[in-house]
Amino acid sequence: MADEAPSARTRLRRSPTRGRYDRTAIDAILDAGLLCHVGYVIDGQPMVTPTLYWREGDRVYWHGSAASNMLRAVDGSPVCLTVSHFDGLVLARSGFHHSVNYRSVMLLGDARVEDASESPELLDRFVDAMVPGRAAAVRPATEQELKATTVVSIAIDEVSAKVREGGPVDDDEDYELPIWAGVVPLHLEVDAAIPDERLAAGIELPDHVEAVKDARWAQPASIPPA
Amino acid sequence: MADEAPSARTRLRRSPTRGRYDRTAIDAILDAGLLCHVGYVIDGQPMVTPTLYWREGDRVYWHGSAASNMLRAVDGSPVCLTVSHFDGLVLARSGFHHSVNYRSVMLLGDARVEDASESPELLDRFVDAMVPGRAAAVRPATEQELKATTVVSIAIDEVSAKVREGGPVDDDEDYELPIWAGVVPLHLEVDAAIPDERLAAGIELPDHVEAVKDARWAQPASIPPA
Repeated sequence: MADEAPSARTRLRRSPTRGRYDRTAIDAILDAGLLCHVGYVIDGQPMVTPTLYWREGDRVYWHGSAASNMLRAVDGSPVCLTVSHFDGLVLARSGFHHSVNYRSVMLLGDARVEDASESPELLDRFVDAMVPGRAAAVRPATEQELKATTVVSIAIDEVSAKVREGGPVDDDEDYELPIWAGVVPLHLEVDAAIPDERLAAGIELPDHVEAVKDARWAQPASIPPA
Repeated sequence: MADEAPSARTRLRRSPTRGRYDRTAIDAILDAGLLCHVGYVIDGQPMVTPTLYWREGDRVYWHGSAASNMLRAVDGSPVCLTVSHFDGLVLARSGFHHSVNYRSVMLLGDARVEDASESPELLDRFVDAMVPGRAAAVRPATEQELKATTVVSIAIDEVSAKVREGGPVDDDEDYELPIWAGVVPLHLEVDAAIPDERLAAGIELPDHVEAVKDARWAQPASIPPA
């Protein structure tokens, strides 16, 4: 397990104790989410697009319309893919020491457009990463749908993770102040599924939908110790 | 209320019906969050940093250590500040029509470092945006703390919002398939506050902490109609 940053630009300078460079932590953070923010540059202007992602081995994938500005801008170009989980507000005895608990990963590298022949399998695994068991339950993709969809990826190579957890850290002399301090935890809650208004008669909620709350991305914050 | 995009690069090309350019929608989305993702460029490499933000009138603010890479890189430079709320998984009858419900805002522009003399009031309002009533309850900032903290902002000017809500939209012929379809709603849940282990004796949970769940950013998804 790497305990050093893979490059100067992924090394955490200011809060080195919050940095994690080992794949155990990085994969745990990546696998605990669905939504990432992809940064890219168009004519010198940085753009940040929220999109779904999934991990397979040493790469992170996302997809989009073959006609999208974003996918055309990232092909072979440097991108930054950031995943962040917002785990809580940290209320300290001073405003200065207020903080947030979070787990984040920042991946740098050139994006690669995947060969279209890989799309059927990649997209099935994408659907299953979102809702395990879903891919087998839906109408298969048509040629036209596959043609309209592009999958891109980035290697998990130049990468860093950043984690803050636990309670506030106050200045020594502030602990005796009569000020409440602590953490307000936050988590992404999965609510009960709502059937489509046009659902055909007699279709029950399938197990794989009922089980969405058990998906990997819906679990409580947990990072293995360094 | 603007119903047209302020620039070509903020105009939604592919899903124009999901675009909103009016301040009512944009402010509702901005005020419903705490965490944004700021995109900036260092030596040609896009970087995306998650950070807290708050809105005041026609600007969005964020802060950081005066020594941070991010804050030094954004001063007077083009940035993209993206806010996104992930409201649900949309399960359609085909993989292709799977989607997510979300509300997002993308702000483009040059970041501006705020004058240090403004910092005390800005940072108090920041703390109160996170936890209303908190600023008055904590130990005031010292000169040194203020010196170590920089506030930056971006105008709400070149901006677009994107909203997807409601159930799946399937191909006509797919509605009769015996496949469950619908929405799995998601929301950011505020859990019960956890007191710091070193809390001085006799300090009760204050009303302003108990009321965090009533803060503007913790409310259910709601966008006024266009």
